[in-house]
Amino acid sequence: MTLNVLGYAAQSPTSALAPFPFERRDPRPDDVVIDILYCGVCHSDLHTARNDWGWTTYPIVPGHEIIGRVRSVGAAVTRYKAGDAVGVGCLVDSCRHCKPCEHGEEQYCQNGFTGTYGGTDRHDGRPTQGGYSDQLVVSDRFVLKVPEGLDLKGAAPLLCAGITTWSPLRHWKVGPGSQVAVVGLGGLGHMGLKLAKALGAEVTLFTRSQGKEADARRLGADRVVLSTDAAQMASVAGCFDLIVDTVPYVHDLNPYLPTLATNGTLVLVGYLGGLEPMLNTVPMVLGRKSVAGSLIGGIAETQEMLDFCGKHGITSDVEVIRMQDINGAYERLLKSDVKYRFVIDMASLKD
Amino acid sequence: MTLNVLGYAAQSPTSALAPFPFERRDPRPDDVVIDILYCGVCHSDLHTARNDWGWTTYPIVPGHEIIGRVRSVGAAVTRYKAGDAVGVGCLVDSCRHCKPCEHGEEQYCQNGFTGTYGGTDRHDGRPTQGGYSDQLVVSDRFVLKVPEGLDLKGAAPLLCAGITTWSPLRHWKVGPGSQVAVVGLGGLGHMGLKLAKALGAEVTLFTRSQGKEADARRLGADRVVLSTDAAQMASVAGCFDLIVDTVPYVHDLNPYLPTLATNGTLVLVGYLGGLEPMLNTVPMVLGRKSVAGSLIGGIAETQEMLDFCGKHGITSDVEVIRMQDINGAYERLLKSDVKYRFVIDMASLKD
Repeated sequence: MTLNVLGYAAQSPTSALAPFPFERRDPRPDDVVIDILYCGVCHSDLHTARNDWGWTTYPIVPGHEIIGRVRSVGAAVTRYKAGDAVGVGCLVDSCRHCKPCEHGEEQYCQNGFTGTYGGTDRHDGRPTQGGYSDQLVVSDRFVLKVPEGLDLKGAAPLLCAGITTWSPLRHWKVGPGSQVAVVGLGGLGHMGLKLAKALGAEVTLFTRSQGKEADARRLGADRVVLSTDAAQMASVAGCFDLIVDTVPYVHDLNPYLPTLATNGTLVLVGYLGGLEPMLNTVPMVLGRKSVAGSLIGGIAETQEMLDFCGKHGITSDVEVIRMQDINGAYERLLKSDVKYRFVIDMASLKD
Repeated sequence: MTLNVLGYAAQSPTSALAPFPFERRDPRPDDVVIDILYCGVCHSDLHTARNDWGWTTYPIVPGHEIIGRVRSVGAAVTRYKAGDAVGVGCLVDSCRHCKPCEHGEEQYCQNGFTGTYGGTDRHDGRPTQGGYSDQLVVSDRFVLKVPEGLDLKGAAPLLCAGITTWSPLRHWKVGPGSQVAVVGLGGLGHMGLKLAKALGAEVTLFTRSQGKEADARRLGADRVVLSTDAAQMASVAGCFDLIVDTVPYVHDLNPYLPTLATNGTLVLVGYLGGLEPMLNTVPMVLGRKSVAGSLIGGIAETQEMLDFCGKHGITSDVEVIRMQDINGAYERLLKSDVKYRFVIDMASLKD
C-alpha cells in the first residue's frame, strides 16, 4: 500500500512545472508522514528542474525547505506525534555509520547522503521527490522539531538557507568579538546577516549594489562595504575572522582575501566550480588565510539552529506564493527579484 | 663604533656571490653578538640574490638558517651568555605590539616583520644582512636556544625548513591518529616527513619521482604515493587531515583535494603566486575542505620546534659546503640536486 500524493514536477529541462500525482512509499516503522504546509524555493530547485548540473532524472519534484505537521508516525517513532510542527531540509537519509555520519555531519556522508529530491531511497531504490507536494514520508532521524512560536512560513527557508550559513558560523566558532562578513544579499546572505548578528558578531555586508545598505542594516549588518569601491575595500583590510561567501556564480575571490584577518577563512557556500580569475596565494601564505567550502549542515546542527532561531525569534524574510505561481517565481529568482525567499503556501495545491 | 664583519654578497641580480666586508650595527643593550658557525642555504636566498621577486636591494648578504655561538651580550640580555649555542631564523624583529605579535605570531606582524636579510632595521633604518657572514647582531627576543646534543650543522635548516613545516603541523593539531601527507621531497618536504612522523602521525609522501620511495621511508614516510598515477591517487581518496604542500612553483592542486578527508586542509608553504589551473571548489564545498597558506613560524613556536627536535634527535639531512662553493651550490639547488639541504661551514670564510 502506497501513499497517493499530489506534487508539482518538471517533466523535462524545458517544461514548466505542472501538477503531478505520484506515490510516496508505504511508511516504514521509523517513518514520519508529514502534511506539508510551506516549502521554500531554493536556487537548487531551479537548477535541478532545468538540469543545469546534468544529474536530474525526470519527473522531478523539487523542494527541500519543508515545514509541515505530522500526520502519523510509524510504530518505532517516539520523538514525534501527530500534530507536531516539523521541518525537513536537504537530507532525508545517509549511511549512518561512516565517520562523518557518526560525527553528526551527515551532509558529508562518505557513502553519499540521500537528497530530499533527486536522490535514491536506500531501502527501496526509488527516486526521492521533494516538498513541492502535499505530503512527505521521512525517516524520523531526518525530521526536525520546529520550536513553538516560530512563524512557520518564515521558518521554511531555515532548512536550507538558514543551516547553510549557520554551519560555517558555528564550525569557525563565531561569537561575541568575531568579525564576520557576508558576501551577497540573497536568500543565503540575508540569513547570514541575521544569524551572525544574533551570535554576537560584528557583521559586515559586502555587496556590489549601493541600494542594499538600508535593508542590510535592518537585517543585522553593522557595516556595508561596496566591493567595487577600492577605498572601501582597503578600509577593511585585515579585518575579518570569517567571510561567508554566498555568491552562486563564478566571481573573483582575490579582492576579499586581503580583508581577512590573520588566520581568517573565506568559506564558499554558494558556488560549485572553478575559481577564475586564479586565486593568488600570496595573502594566504603571508597571513595563514584559508579558502574553504561548506555544504548545508548536519541534522543535529540543523536542530541547534532551529532552536537558536526559536529563542531569538529569527525567521527568513519571505514572499509567500501559490504553488501555481512557481514558474513565474523561477523567472523572478533568476533576476534576484525576491526579498529574500519565495515560500510556497502548500494549501494552494487544493485550489 | 660598529662591528666589521666579512660576508658573501651578491652585488647585482647577475653577479656571483663574492667576499664582502661590511659593518654590523654597534650592539644595543638587548643585542646578542653571534659568531656564526653554520648557515643553511634556502631557496629564498637564491631568489633574493637574483632578485626573482623584484624587491632586492644590493649588495645583499643572504642566509636565514643560522647557527652560532654567543660572543657577547648587551647589558639588558639575561637569557644568553657567551658560548651558548644559538640560532636565528628568518625574523630578526617585528613591531612587537600588534595582535599577531602579541600572540607569538611575529611572522604575521601587521606592521611587517624585519627579515634577517633584505629588511630594514626598525631603529637605525639600515638594511639587514643575513647569515652568509662571520658574525651577526640580533635582538635577544629573536634569538633561539639550540638544545644540547643537537648536531649544529644539521640544526641550521631547522630555522627555516624546519619551522616552516612545523608551524602548520602544530596549527592544524597533528598528533597520534592524524593522517598527514607531504607534497614534494626537498628541504622542506624531508623536514615535514621527519616532524610529522615524530609527532605521531601516519605520514604519506606525494611525489612525482618513483626513485624517492626508499629515502622517503627512511625519513619517516609510512606510504609513498606517485601523484602522476591515477590509481594510486584514488587509493588515498578522502584520507588526509592535513596535506603540507612544499612545492615551490605553480602546480595543480586539484588532484590533491579529493585525497583530503572531510574537514581536511591543504596548506601551501612553498608557493607564492596564482593557482593554475583554476581551483575547483566542488570537493571543497562537498567535504568542507580548505586550501590555506602558512609562513615560517613565530619565535616561541620555533623554540618549541627546536626543543622537540632536541628531545627526538631530529636534524636536517645536510651536505656541508664551503662558503666559496656557494655559487656552484646554487646551480645544483636549481636542479634539486641536494639531499636535502646545503649548509655552509662558516669556518671556511677564513680560508
